Amino acid sequence: MQVEGKHYRTIWLKDAEPHIVQIIDQTVLPHRFVIIDLHSVEEIAHAIKSMQVRGAGLIGATAAYGMYLAAIEAISKGKNYEVLTKSASLLRSTRPTAVNLAWAVNKMLQALEENWGQPDFITCARQSAHAIADEDAAACQQIASYGKELLCDIYIRKGEKPLNILTHCNAGWLAFVDYGTALSPIYSAFDAGIPVHVWVDETRPSNQGARLTAWELKQQGVPHTIIADNVGGHLMQHGQVDLVIVGADRITRTGDTANKIGTYLKALAAKDCSVPFFVAATIATLDGSLTDGIKKIPIEERHADEVSSIEGWAEDKLTTVRLTPQGSPAKNFGFDVTPHRLITGVITERGIFKPEDLTALMV
Amino acid sequence: MQVEGKHYRTIWLKDAEPHIVQIIDQTVLPHRFVIIDLHSVEEIAHAIKSMQVRGAGLIGATAAYGMYLAAIEAISKGKNYEVLTKSASLLRSTRPTAVNLAWAVNKMLQALEENWGQPDFITCARQSAHAIADEDAAACQQIASYGKELLCDIYIRKGEKPLNILTHCNAGWLAFVDYGTALSPIYSAFDAGIPVHVWVDETRPSNQGARLTAWELKQQGVPHTIIADNVGGHLMQHGQVDLVIVGADRITRTGDTANKIGTYLKALAAKDCSVPFFVAATIATLDGSLTDGIKKIPIEERHADEVSSIEGWAEDKLTTVRLTPQGSPAKNFGFDVTPHRLITGVITERGIFKPEDLTALMV
Repeated sequence: MQVEGKHYRTIWLKDAEPHIVQIIDQTVLPHRFVIIDLHSVEEIAHAIKSMQVRGAGLIGATAAYGMYLAAIEAISKGKNYEVLTKSASLLRSTRPTAVNLAWAVNKMLQALEENWGQPDFITCARQSAHAIADEDAAACQQIASYGKELLCDIYIRKGEKPLNILTHCNAGWLAFVDYGTALSPIYSAFDAGIPVHVWVDETRPSNQGARLTAWELKQQGVPHTIIADNVGGHLMQHGQVDLVIVGADRITRTGDTANKIGTYLKALAAKDCSVPFFVAATIATLDGSLTDGIKKIPIEERHADEVSSIEGWAEDKLTTVRLTPQGSPAKNFGFDVTPHRLITGVITERGIFKPEDLTALMV
Repeated sequence: MQVEGKHYRTIWLKDAEPHIVQIIDQTVLPHRFVIIDLHSVEEIAHAIKSMQVRGAGLIGATAAYGMYLAAIEAISKGKNYEVLTKSASLLRSTRPTAVNLAWAVNKMLQALEENWGQPDFITCARQSAHAIADEDAAACQQIASYGKELLCDIYIRKGEKPLNILTHCNAGWLAFVDYGTALSPIYSAFDAGIPVHVWVDETRPSNQGARLTAWELKQQGVPHTIIADNVGGHLMQHGQVDLVIVGADRITRTGDTANKIGTYLKALAAKDCSVPFFVAATIATLDGSLTDGIKKIPIEERHADEVSSIEGWAEDKLTTVRLTPQGSPAKNFGFDVTPHRLITGVITERGIFKPEDLTALMV
């Protein structure tokens, strides 16, 4: 996608120095646009844990490049295979909810195992990481295409009046290698001339909506309005939302969907107000091993400081301010699970499915 | 209630200078505790509009004291009755959603009209304002008593395990003259030795939960945890909430309830998870003239800056930081309406009513 008119992916290898991974530091957006060099699997793990990179697809791709750096390290340490297994454990432990992470690490580990001892081992590792990133971008392009048709249909049914779409968190190109899942249909419809307007949920406590989704949409020129997370229900009651599209971090066999905390509340309001509620996700997000999502999907608990304090822009620099009384405790759950009964459809790279029909895509 | 061990109401007349109204500036809590002098009806109107005072009951009481200052001004301007009607219009226009405001202004206007021309006119005006404040505090004490019984019942039914209560926004003593509505039953139960724990919704964008409710609870020593507004549904799915209690800004004949934006989303989650959902409100909050709350209650839209920027504490001073990209628009609706079908009961100073039975309390 475009940043100030220049095309970027969210992760790539540095020009002429392919042992260095480069990412956009998402913790300082939208106030600053900073590219970071990552030199080791530890730096990769830190980038995932600290949310310099985040989002289902990008976490997976970053972990894949992390395994590529581990491959380089394994060779440089006298062909030490243990480096690979230890790196895999380290990467898997960074974030517990998104299933793409384990999926990408396992896929890399399998490729590395197959090529272990080959003279072109590092080249193979690099190609495997690139393949995971390319696969993610291609899947998002397919989602854009199916999603655009859906938006077209709703636009026509609405009598060709501007389409109001609500989204929660960021499932745009910043959450993937390119294009995104929840936002790519919107970009595609916008490019096709459909008048769209996006209600952007702020998405407390990390404000991925107010910081990242708003910034992405602004860079691509898509009309949007930022709202507090509390507002969506009121808008739906008053006919101001034509559909909701959100991303996903893990989807079970039954279609129960883990996504950023607060998604469940929007799904309830959509059901109550008869607003279609869509999830957009790549097949790598499906977890065929689980059924009841509320009981079984592990929910990450992050540091309470993310609730008690917030970083913003003041007097030309990033500044952290405290929001709560000294000594008042806070809790910070990262995700919730939306039961499949509240989901109208899941937009994937293989088409749009009812949540209960997703099993067709699972191995 | 207590602040650092000393008793305060939220509004009073200055010692030895009874033509000056004093309030606690709620915009700088919890970081600073500042008392402000208000000298005129214009200063009163500004305090309401800028949310230095806020909350259904306190807005009403502040407007009543505003009419008392208007009475002083009317006399000092050569017994000019027009000062009273103009002041009433000014005060009514400050906030559109809370019905207590118009209720208190009308009650004062009636008393002032009856006593116009009497030698003790200003004394009567002062007594009328005091009566409205006292009535509010007394109603909240009654609500505390009915609400405590309710909490006791739920505590016993739960097998005497700690009671987890979720609240949204601030309907504590800071929102009234004293005690509060949603929080007064909790204070009462806590004082009676029932182990309570309060989940405090942050309540974006003005953070009345994270700033005011947390501060109040901390001052009274009540265990609590601050959470993002997105979290309540997840907690209810996992049995972590025994009941929800919120306040109200206006309740229609049918029991539809306007309260801080986001209340509707919590009511939906409570219904979905079979968690009892209670509204606590004084009878002054009932508006017998309206039926369908979603269609008829006017919803205040406040400035977008309250979403784009936030004030907090940094380096020993209040600092405002920008949260959103430059040029990304935001919208800021202050309230939403929870349909009566989602409300288990309404705790009033006359007892606990099903929403559809509230008509018995309406004239």
